[in-house]
Amino acid sequence: MIRDQMLAAEKVKALEWRDSALYLLDQRLLPQQEFWQRYDSAADVALAIREMRVRGAPAIGIAAAFAVVLAAQQHIANQVTNLPLALEADFKLLAESRPTAVNLFWALEKMRSCLKLAVQHQQPLQLLEAQAVAILNDDREANLYTAELGLQMMRATNPTQQHVMTHCNTGALATGGFGTALGVIRAAYLDGLVSCVHVNETRPWLQGSRLTAWELVGEGIPSLLNVDSSAAHLMAQGKITWVIVGADRITANGDVANKIGTYQLAVLARYHNVKVMVVAPSSTIDMQLSSGRQIPIEERAGEEILSVGEQRIAAEIAAFNPVFDVTPAHLVDVIVTERGCVEQPTAEKMRVLMQGESL
Amino acid sequence: MIRDQMLAAEKVKALEWRDSALYLLDQRLLPQQEFWQRYDSAADVALAIREMRVRGAPAIGIAAAFAVVLAAQQHIANQVTNLPLALEADFKLLAESRPTAVNLFWALEKMRSCLKLAVQHQQPLQLLEAQAVAILNDDREANLYTAELGLQMMRATNPTQQHVMTHCNTGALATGGFGTALGVIRAAYLDGLVSCVHVNETRPWLQGSRLTAWELVGEGIPSLLNVDSSAAHLMAQGKITWVIVGADRITANGDVANKIGTYQLAVLARYHNVKVMVVAPSSTIDMQLSSGRQIPIEERAGEEILSVGEQRIAAEIAAFNPVFDVTPAHLVDVIVTERGCVEQPTAEKMRVLMQGESL
Repeated sequence: MIRDQMLAAEKVKALEWRDSALYLLDQRLLPQQEFWQRYDSAADVALAIREMRVRGAPAIGIAAAFAVVLAAQQHIANQVTNLPLALEADFKLLAESRPTAVNLFWALEKMRSCLKLAVQHQQPLQLLEAQAVAILNDDREANLYTAELGLQMMRATNPTQQHVMTHCNTGALATGGFGTALGVIRAAYLDGLVSCVHVNETRPWLQGSRLTAWELVGEGIPSLLNVDSSAAHLMAQGKITWVIVGADRITANGDVANKIGTYQLAVLARYHNVKVMVVAPSSTIDMQLSSGRQIPIEERAGEEILSVGEQRIAAEIAAFNPVFDVTPAHLVDVIVTERGCVEQPTAEKMRVLMQGESL
Repeated sequence: MIRDQMLAAEKVKALEWRDSALYLLDQRLLPQQEFWQRYDSAADVALAIREMRVRGAPAIGIAAAFAVVLAAQQHIANQVTNLPLALEADFKLLAESRPTAVNLFWALEKMRSCLKLAVQHQQPLQLLEAQAVAILNDDREANLYTAELGLQMMRATNPTQQHVMTHCNTGALATGGFGTALGVIRAAYLDGLVSCVHVNETRPWLQGSRLTAWELVGEGIPSLLNVDSSAAHLMAQGKITWVIVGADRITANGDVANKIGTYQLAVLARYHNVKVMVVAPSSTIDMQLSSGRQIPIEERAGEEILSVGEQRIAAEIAAFNPVFDVTPAHLVDVIVTERGCVEQPTAEKMRVLMQGESL
């Protein structure tokens, strides 16, 4: 039911695979300009990831998977004798494009496993392409299912109309489908549960004011933009029931790396008795890392804080620009994945989730 | 000693009274442009306050005091028969320029009291001018003294080199002298106690990245800019000992209205065992209001969030732009004023401070 409503509401995509090429909507230019660009090489896709033309943990994983297909196409056209060897440089380049979101490495690992089978096959390209398409479609399905799970969780907690807050962009632009956190928010709006979405602008890259606002307003979902530092002031007014965010990496103990500012939102939410929901596909879960302290936190150029577009805004000061932070599991009320929900995450609960056992 | 070092370090001013006119440095244009403008009428000064060409609670109080002098000059030149009656419209216009900072109303009240004496005097203008100059000089003295008090408080708490965090601009640009919170930080740097100042950029108006950064870098004080939402991430690293901020109004129970974001910094500071110091002249204390709930919180145009300069940044979304918030007294470790320090403020301690009794 909600699934059908969501499919009917679909308007935006971050990427498309068409005619053996990857097309990306350049998210640096939104919302002023909707510019789609065709990509034919892994190097160009790696650059697009690095420059955040495509961003969002699931979306960069999907883009990287298709980038491997593009690389394989080129190598096969060039009649390389050893496809896996030729692809090594592409895998390396893609893996180095951004460090924090694990979906990128997960997708590359999927493609690498597929490659092992593909090279024994008469049509290796077809297998690789099918694997990349499956990663995209699985993410899309995961979005739909997590949206329903998140909605159920919200309704069970509080069945009355409510305001929610979100940070960064976790919508269609960040994924292969409807979004993770924004997918839950969309479903909750369509189901009549959410009456207003408070959108943190999300400095420095303004994913909230540029991307999330664009998605929400485009679908007619009542929403209100605020600066990141008014989050607690809003929470203190007592209307917000949930902070709903995505994730770039979740470790084996349930710690969550996500866009800078998520950690402080979680601290503020706990202080104000607001609940925190983290929504992500299970490909975001990195069982190799025992805690969030081990997650590499990307620091980008200070220039992202010092200027907006071509316009210099700041004095001649040095800037510290970590673009992710880590929220410890004890500040997370629930992690919602397509494998199920984990309330008050712990290492044991995460292990059970990833083993596919029922919780 | 610190006083002499501070006087030697002085570089920046927000306003000057010269040749019977008020000169304001246009803070909208900093740091790109240092543009001083001459003001000859109260209406123009009221507009400058409204448009934030001059901002900072103490500075707008001082500007308003001189605006009354400018208005009196004009009325006397126009040979009005009833100066107090003629000035009523000017007082009203100035009082309506901004709602939250109480220093504005305090300064206007001072000028109104002076006017009662002045009209019985042969040279009313001289008295009014002398009162406005006294407000400026008293603020300057208050800055120097609170800087010493704040430094002593910091040293008593932790005598080793440390990092501090500040929000908005509370420096020379916000006051008649060296600043309130930034005055303490300056003194602590000059005294060898502070090795790095973390400057929150302070959206939406960017007082941190535009003004505080400009002042600190201009004086060679080691400082690092960060987005507002990385405050907790920085605190979690354990280096920051104090969040040091100013105030726009402090109520009789010790609640503090200050730039949006201050409240959440105080919550985050408490969570991370970081102390919170509020530095303000006693003219910021409003004993008429029993708690922060009674403080009118200014909401400015959403446009301030949606655009930076001429550049549109956000999608077509509505914005909520409260520019102050209220930090409850129990989250404040110390209020530093020229009358003395109030640790763990309460209504009783505030009453004693304002009665001038020893604490």
